[in-house]
Amino acid sequence: MLGFDSGSLTPHRATFVRRLSEMAGAYQDGAAARAILAGGDDPVIYLGYDGDVPEEPGHLLFRTTIINPGTIGSEFFMTKGHHHVRDSAEFYLGMSGMGVMLMESRDGKFAAERLLPSAVVYVPPGWAHRTVNTGGTPLAFLAVYSGDAGHDYASVERSGFSRRVHRGQAGAELRPEASSQGGPGGTAG
Amino acid sequence: MLGFDSGSLTPHRATFVRRLSEMAGAYQDGAAARAILAGGDDPVIYLGYDGDVPEEPGHLLFRTTIINPGTIGSEFFMTKGHHHVRDSAEFYLGMSGMGVMLMESRDGKFAAERLLPSAVVYVPPGWAHRTVNTGGTPLAFLAVYSGDAGHDYASVERSGFSRRVHRGQAGAELRPEASSQGGPGGTAG
Repeated sequence: MLGFDSGSLTPHRATFVRRLSEMAGAYQDGAAARAILAGGDDPVIYLGYDGDVPEEPGHLLFRTTIINPGTIGSEFFMTKGHHHVRDSAEFYLGMSGMGVMLMESRDGKFAAERLLPSAVVYVPPGWAHRTVNTGGTPLAFLAVYSGDAGHDYASVERSGFSRRVHRGQAGAELRPEASSQGGPGGTAG
Repeated sequence: MLGFDSGSLTPHRATFVRRLSEMAGAYQDGAAARAILAGGDDPVIYLGYDGDVPEEPGHLLFRTTIINPGTIGSEFFMTKGHHHVRDSAEFYLGMSGMGVMLMESRDGKFAAERLLPSAVVYVPPGWAHRTVNTGGTPLAFLAVYSGDAGHDYASVERSGFSRRVHRGQAGAELRPEASSQGGPGGTAG
């Protein structure tokens, strides 16, 4: 059963929690991240629930994720982002809150789609993907993916995404990785 | 975007419609089915929308299905039911209405799960599956499955499921295929 407001999944096989200390390097403003941690705080960036399915070929894994609202510097809370080890698609359904899905292909194409309640976002095979909470409340969503997809976080840790989502004067803004002060990115969600 | 009340999916690549004439042989009471068709009626049993995704390995197909309320004789409107050609799982999410998922493995194990709004029903690899609308309103649900799953309707047409869902005095009842008048099946939904 899905709890659309809370992001809950019952029953579930496991829960997962990602705190800032596990992904501080993912944010552009490393000094802001280090300052939070040095102050003794280690906020939960996101958490979620894994469906009770074996991680094997032929199966479909499903999980819910809840990204808390907040920023590191001006960059919105987000997932680490990953490629699949075996290029395969992922199906997303927005449950509550407001966010954006960043997608980037191995040859450098970029796309962003709004992740809103009842919105379907499809990540094609071979595209790295990262979800970002651009709202003031938790962002909850469902993901369904192949049992043998596998998660490759390392390549995203190395190269990142070409755009980041910051809180700007007009709301959420997509900004190129190279710039910390805005640019030709456009509005994200 | 999913329309949870109506079962709509936008955008979609295609729509599909299944009328009684395409599946009259699936119902236990063949005489009742033939009488409806002979009377000039050919009701839509179910219809739905396919997401805009290529039917290829690595992709995940998704569709919504809406089963109308009704019975043929006393047997509730249902899908044809199918195996996947390549044994692979299917993820279901109830959107609106009330129903039941029938599942049967190739070695004859049987299971039934309620399909209600927000309910997740997981069909493991290798299990044939059929959805049944046991309520008085349309039953809408989402399905996600592997791009190379394929649909094998013929084996279900040959052998059917070992249980059927009929309207009984106490509501929906699971009845063994051999009996048209009830038996040790239990209550379905």
